[in-house]
Amino acid sequence: MKLEKLVGERFKERPADCLLDSHALMVRGGYIKNMANGIYSSYPIMKRIQKKIEAIIRQEMDAIDGQEVTLPVVMPASLWEESGRYQSIGSELLRFQDRSKGQYVLGMTHEEAAVHLVREYAVSYTKYPFMIYQIQTKFRDEARPRGGLIRVREFTMKDAYSFHTSQQDLEEYYQRCHKAYERIFARVGLPQVISVASDSGMMGGNISHEFMLLSPIGEDSIVLCQACGYRSNMEAAESVVENNSGSQAMLQEVETPDVRTIEELCDFLHTSPEKTCKAVAYTTLETNRLVVLFLRGDMEVNEAKLRRLLGEEFCAADLSDRADITAGFIGPVGLRAACTVYYDGSLKNADNLVCGANKLDTHMVGLNVRRDLGDISFVDAAKAVEGGICPCCGKRTLTISRGVEVGNIFQLGDKYTRTMQMTYLDETGKTKYPIMGCYGIGVGRLAACICEAHHDDRGPIWPVAVAPWQVHLCAVRADDENVRKKADELFAVLQNAGIEVVYDDRSVSAGVMFADADLLGVLYRIIVSPRNLKENCCEIVSRDKTLQKKVAPETSLETIRNILSEEKK
Amino acid sequence: MKLEKLVGERFKERPADCLLDSHALMVRGGYIKNMANGIYSSYPIMKRIQKKIEAIIRQEMDAIDGQEVTLPVVMPASLWEESGRYQSIGSELLRFQDRSKGQYVLGMTHEEAAVHLVREYAVSYTKYPFMIYQIQTKFRDEARPRGGLIRVREFTMKDAYSFHTSQQDLEEYYQRCHKAYERIFARVGLPQVISVASDSGMMGGNISHEFMLLSPIGEDSIVLCQACGYRSNMEAAESVVENNSGSQAMLQEVETPDVRTIEELCDFLHTSPEKTCKAVAYTTLETNRLVVLFLRGDMEVNEAKLRRLLGEEFCAADLSDRADITAGFIGPVGLRAACTVYYDGSLKNADNLVCGANKLDTHMVGLNVRRDLGDISFVDAAKAVEGGICPCCGKRTLTISRGVEVGNIFQLGDKYTRTMQMTYLDETGKTKYPIMGCYGIGVGRLAACICEAHHDDRGPIWPVAVAPWQVHLCAVRADDENVRKKADELFAVLQNAGIEVVYDDRSVSAGVMFADADLLGVLYRIIVSPRNLKENCCEIVSRDKTLQKKVAPETSLETIRNILSEEKK
Repeated sequence: MKLEKLVGERFKERPADCLLDSHALMVRGGYIKNMANGIYSSYPIMKRIQKKIEAIIRQEMDAIDGQEVTLPVVMPASLWEESGRYQSIGSELLRFQDRSKGQYVLGMTHEEAAVHLVREYAVSYTKYPFMIYQIQTKFRDEARPRGGLIRVREFTMKDAYSFHTSQQDLEEYYQRCHKAYERIFARVGLPQVISVASDSGMMGGNISHEFMLLSPIGEDSIVLCQACGYRSNMEAAESVVENNSGSQAMLQEVETPDVRTIEELCDFLHTSPEKTCKAVAYTTLETNRLVVLFLRGDMEVNEAKLRRLLGEEFCAADLSDRADITAGFIGPVGLRAACTVYYDGSLKNADNLVCGANKLDTHMVGLNVRRDLGDISFVDAAKAVEGGICPCCGKRTLTISRGVEVGNIFQLGDKYTRTMQMTYLDETGKTKYPIMGCYGIGVGRLAACICEAHHDDRGPIWPVAVAPWQVHLCAVRADDENVRKKADELFAVLQNAGIEVVYDDRSVSAGVMFADADLLGVLYRIIVSPRNLKENCCEIVSRDKTLQKKVAPETSLETIRNILSEEKK
Repeated sequence: MKLEKLVGERFKERPADCLLDSHALMVRGGYIKNMANGIYSSYPIMKRIQKKIEAIIRQEMDAIDGQEVTLPVVMPASLWEESGRYQSIGSELLRFQDRSKGQYVLGMTHEEAAVHLVREYAVSYTKYPFMIYQIQTKFRDEARPRGGLIRVREFTMKDAYSFHTSQQDLEEYYQRCHKAYERIFARVGLPQVISVASDSGMMGGNISHEFMLLSPIGEDSIVLCQACGYRSNMEAAESVVENNSGSQAMLQEVETPDVRTIEELCDFLHTSPEKTCKAVAYTTLETNRLVVLFLRGDMEVNEAKLRRLLGEEFCAADLSDRADITAGFIGPVGLRAACTVYYDGSLKNADNLVCGANKLDTHMVGLNVRRDLGDISFVDAAKAVEGGICPCCGKRTLTISRGVEVGNIFQLGDKYTRTMQMTYLDETGKTKYPIMGCYGIGVGRLAACICEAHHDDRGPIWPVAVAPWQVHLCAVRADDENVRKKADELFAVLQNAGIEVVYDDRSVSAGVMFADADLLGVLYRIIVSPRNLKENCCEIVSRDKTLQKKVAPETSLETIRNILSEEKK
């Protein structure tokens, strides 16, 4: 198509409200337009990229026996009540009434709808396994959309649901899907995406993985072991801490007037956080219990792990009206409050610690966990730390990186089939619940991540497989008769050869032309100009300038074909 | 793919709640599943058909220089307030609040979003004309969804928006789009779809056309002239009535105790409805005016035309507390109520009519409109009638047919650009409002209409261009070693040749196999069976049985290829 006709505005200045490069470039290049908080329209160039990504995803889903379906965007609340998620999900699930006052939700994920579609179909073991998927608009009422397409409220997602009669079958399919995801990310130009073990959160089930693009723009913390390759999302990463018990210090009270935080305590007693035992108090939201977690003073609470432990949501406890507990001075010895107490593994074998004395303005020193607390059990509720011990190989080789989640896969078990009464008859005629896996990729976020990974100051550098066009043809000085003729010819020749070309024949300066071309980010550019034609050639230049060659106009089709077919390898 | 793996239930019995054949067959064949009132999921077979229809639409939209975009499903109310439609559209526009109490709507059409996308881009005349389109989920909170995919609340729609600098340019593009629509309907197997002039309703603008599949299941009335080809939706059809004035009867009062309806009046005075003048009274909803429309007693009010005339919505008037008007006896002579009076064209030159006398239990006879009412002007507010006069050729050749709307095109004028302040600078530097056209096709309804037009009792008969597969391969008695071998080979051969095949190798009876094949509706079937193989052949049968031939298995690929390429012509 002719660039002159391409709908979308391009401009030079980086918008002040764009923190991420991908966001700024997509706004500057006429890819997306913001309509409301976390809601964007896509211009034609963005739509072309999205369709290419979707085609790749579709191919890979079909290759693992996926069958494409469409599930509704608007779903009745009653369906979500069956699984229990109408109640359990917070306000990110958008709820509303229709004209007849019926309760509905906007789909942010479609486990319920998938079960609804197949529960009358898959009533015999002979129908299993199978996988259905869709590529469709979803809405998630995020509290804090950010970064252009990185975190939005309305988005296009590929979501897939597989159904199985055994855990082994699910695991095999899960591995197939994992491999398909690796192929997808490699094909769209992000072979560096890694999968990490993750917390299943509101999805239910146990085993799950997130596919992460490591990037400083990421919101997620990824725990990596440089020695053995262990990889986990922070939320799921096991925290391993070693303490060497040996001190014979006595447990005794000390007065610590007005010293409440770990920092103040360390200052006051000239010790360091890892030689303290801190207490964190929470109230659970469903059962309204008071929970006190003790952990080593240098560790942070991993709320995802604590949520799994408690089996419900929680918030920081308000202790102001509790007479049985002394806020700021809570300790494991002599705590008499009505509460559930947990000890994090970071306290195991620790000694000579400072801790609260459950008395105003008083702490204890010399706490030896084993000696003074007896035969307690420990939980894993702390965050893994940089330089920490790898739970897999045991070396002190952990690093923490930032990452953006571009996909996720979950083993769901029978959470949905059981609550929604989907059953089948097995070989022996017994009624059973099938088990499910689900598999998601956000198309728009993936496009933004490709842009993050492939760009320079002047614009995106799209990998050919997802580029809006394969070739960008520039007629510099199209008012020159010879340039016009040669460029028009070349445009026709390339199009007839089935190559996707965007053709810039506007009467603008070479500077404007190339700046626009940089923003469109097509990898290969063919330049026809009076200067080139004097040498009877045109120029083929790659967007990243690693390729720059002059060829005769007659051979440019062949040259560009060879270059493009090289790309495919 | 193997039929055994196809997700979707098929069954024999026609569901009791399905009034339309397409609805019943799509439920029986595992095409769609109802989730809530007017909300369906699509099984893989339906998705395949939808994708084929979408591909055809996309090709034809691209061929008329359309550029595909994505506009949001969820839009802020503020955008719809700009055009005024947030107020003017009723409860079919679904309104809701997000988590921050912001007001939003679900998109049922996207004129506002289209203007939002391009109003900063198209600020110079050089950018025009252009057209953007999308194929996307929409939601319209219909009061009465019906007939499976014929009238739903959530649907996939192709909607396109063109922008122009002159009415002439819009009209030229409108014609191009009209032709593209004709090609689309022909290609999907509905060459019989006709376009009819229509009322623009809530869209604004003046000229518009609906594309109609004439069918007894239709909800719309279409006015057709068998002589000159005039075609119009009932809502837009001009009503032409001729009266021959000649009677010199005197205008005089008659007592008509308790006679209020036209029927009672005709009985009582031994006359016929066309010799009466009836009055219909409405109250307008915005300006709260009383409106009285007089029309010939045999005619019906066309509310769409009256709405255009009044420029606002209205309802039947409640006359019970009006002292200045005598309900049931309203007439054009001596009416002294504070109201707006209209005379429909059906009264022009009428004479010797019976009408109300504006007095309880009293009518007048001998009304001669010209003589007794003087120089009044007439409006067109009545429905066209079967056997009526064609407004185009003047013959009494009108017929009224039922039709289903499968697409529509509108000339919108500057309704949206003016209200939403989208402007451009013309060649002389003057600021102007661009004018718009919009063009819609409902994908699901189109699929249902194709099914309505192409089916028998046993299932749909999909035109090859939209069929879920091109060939249905049946291995009858797949437990027979020879059948299994030949059918497996043929499956591989056909697939390798790029032909889309669904392969039924289940251990079921030929009866079950063929009944399922009928429900899938693939036009060409290849049957491999022990009986055929004895004669060293397989059978190629068309779904409608017009083709039945036996060919050697080795030549079946070539035969089917020839048949399919014949289809494309």
